[in-house]
Amino acid sequence: MSEFSPGLEGVVAAETAISEVDGANGRLIYRGGYLIEDLAPVVTYEEVAYLLWHGNLPNESQLDELHKQLAAGRHLNKAAKATQLAMDPATEPMDVLRTVVSAQGAAKTLVKPTLEEAIALTAVFPTIVGATYRRRQGKDIVEPRDDLSHAANVLWMMEGKEPDSDAVHRVDSYLVLLADHGLNASTFAARVVASTGSNLTSAVVGAIGALSGPAHGRATYDARTMLDKIGSAENADKWLHEAHARHERFSGFGHRVYRTYDPRAKILREMAKAAAPELHRTAVRTEELALQILHEAHPERPNATNVDFWASVVLTGAGIPKEIFTCLFATSRVAGWTAHVLESLSDLRIIRPASVWTGPQPGTKPLQLAKR
Amino acid sequence: MSEFSPGLEGVVAAETAISEVDGANGRLIYRGGYLIEDLAPVVTYEEVAYLLWHGNLPNESQLDELHKQLAAGRHLNKAAKATQLAMDPATEPMDVLRTVVSAQGAAKTLVKPTLEEAIALTAVFPTIVGATYRRRQGKDIVEPRDDLSHAANVLWMMEGKEPDSDAVHRVDSYLVLLADHGLNASTFAARVVASTGSNLTSAVVGAIGALSGPAHGRATYDARTMLDKIGSAENADKWLHEAHARHERFSGFGHRVYRTYDPRAKILREMAKAAAPELHRTAVRTEELALQILHEAHPERPNATNVDFWASVVLTGAGIPKEIFTCLFATSRVAGWTAHVLESLSDLRIIRPASVWTGPQPGTKPLQLAKR
Repeated sequence: MSEFSPGLEGVVAAETAISEVDGANGRLIYRGGYLIEDLAPVVTYEEVAYLLWHGNLPNESQLDELHKQLAAGRHLNKAAKATQLAMDPATEPMDVLRTVVSAQGAAKTLVKPTLEEAIALTAVFPTIVGATYRRRQGKDIVEPRDDLSHAANVLWMMEGKEPDSDAVHRVDSYLVLLADHGLNASTFAARVVASTGSNLTSAVVGAIGALSGPAHGRATYDARTMLDKIGSAENADKWLHEAHARHERFSGFGHRVYRTYDPRAKILREMAKAAAPELHRTAVRTEELALQILHEAHPERPNATNVDFWASVVLTGAGIPKEIFTCLFATSRVAGWTAHVLESLSDLRIIRPASVWTGPQPGTKPLQLAKR
Repeated sequence: MSEFSPGLEGVVAAETAISEVDGANGRLIYRGGYLIEDLAPVVTYEEVAYLLWHGNLPNESQLDELHKQLAAGRHLNKAAKATQLAMDPATEPMDVLRTVVSAQGAAKTLVKPTLEEAIALTAVFPTIVGATYRRRQGKDIVEPRDDLSHAANVLWMMEGKEPDSDAVHRVDSYLVLLADHGLNASTFAARVVASTGSNLTSAVVGAIGALSGPAHGRATYDARTMLDKIGSAENADKWLHEAHARHERFSGFGHRVYRTYDPRAKILREMAKAAAPELHRTAVRTEELALQILHEAHPERPNATNVDFWASVVLTGAGIPKEIFTCLFATSRVAGWTAHVLESLSDLRIIRPASVWTGPQPGTKPLQLAKR
């Protein structure tokens, strides 16, 4: 039995060809061996999803076929529609997403994960996210449109008006950049669930749950909340020093794997100025000061800005309200989750680690029962 | 970075005082250091749940208080009730359970797991399972009763008639025996989900998904299905040899951790004769022959009967139809899932393992895009 490594840090839990986080060199490699910085500027989310599922980029007819499959999959079935309407509109959006995806994927029998189901589940996320947002606003739900891209459908179903092409580009870039990231916690959760021979929906629903936490998908929301509190570039110095003095964590900094600047953060940083000029100004000053403070306090740590920090600015610039950020993260990552589950099927083995007993040995404590 | 151990076999992923599976000696230790064979004959499910949550058995007033909390928690809220009704009655029961639990636990904000929520989630499982079964039968849903125990409520809400005391005892014993089992896959899934700072419902919903698989919770259903196919003690020899010849796995045999007879299987085996005499006869002969065949084929393996084999007989004797077996497993294990999550909060750290890249290195494959 091996040593206990808290959080399984450095413990290899899978072999994968879906993506690789080369933390030491600040590289993210997507399936096929593509560096994220080469891929992101030239592909759409649909192409990246295809790549993660198949191992190669689609040609024109393959891409056309995928567009058709996604369009067909964007409609909620009867149970999922009724479930969406059953939820209080004020429910935390990730809780709604978890529940409605679970309903959408509920089946009459236990079925093994398939590519068709991966496509269908990926397709339906913007529909659920759009409906969840509209209901929060007290507005009517907007149906998906077959003539729009995946990213454009996100905005269309949220806003109910012809989406702005710059905003679509920002959402699409975000979806491309976040689509997979090695054995992150939500992807690992999906693999653990699927490892028992369970179905794809269960794996995806488990992953949504894992993504909901502040140490994972919710970090983008938290980064934006911090920027809101800071308010302006001028206030950054005061706010950050005060927050540091009361031992508050700076949202948007640090990562388990990257020892240097996250390549996705770099790309989003470049997009941020045009996307949201005012927030960008605050963010630039915040980043500069936060890194300074962190380096002084912990010179031994690699205190780099993470993807969540700059994603929060770009998504804001695309018109996405922060309470939808984590749902949009899920909308992207579902391609990766499903690709990992499909990959794991080729050599499925239950993920069942060991534990170390810290309780008393048998016979230590008398068995004292309540009076009968 | 450590070696890759498929399925994380032998890799320590947590320190825990909730339960310990001592596979080498065939012992299962529950929190407080109690051996399952000492505990099971004298406690109720409510007492075991209390033990797993608190670390000690309840006194009379603590148990009384827990009974009241469970009674109060057994009612579905508005969203969960509507979600239950939104599901096609023919849906796989575990898919319904996953979805309705998700709806029941949906909240307006992200909240940290609490004991109160653990009790409330545990309380509501029999209600969802009962309603799911009744709807499958085309019958009206039966409301929970405050004057009945947890086990009795399971049967009451399934059958809609005063439950038989022997059947209640069998269900209660089963619930006690299955309530926790170290870092099994569903408990580990719950811990992975919770490790990001997510909420308790997300962890439990992830665990339900993991339990749904045939390598985990569904094994009890599969064991019963095998016994159904065998049909009688007299047919066991022929069926098992033929199945073995076509390389079919025998359901109900073998376990990742136990190297000897599972102590829970031993207890259930003793209960099985009175519970279901005819099925017991088939099961005894099946066990004898299956172990013989397995020992001959794989003398190097510890081919022991597992808990699922005898659980399938005892649950049958309690009047539970096999399509509800996995749901009943979940109804028991939710106490363990929630206890593990609450324990993990004291030193929460994201579970984010490493992976080994098996794909091509960057620059190997040209970036070929579909025509624009």
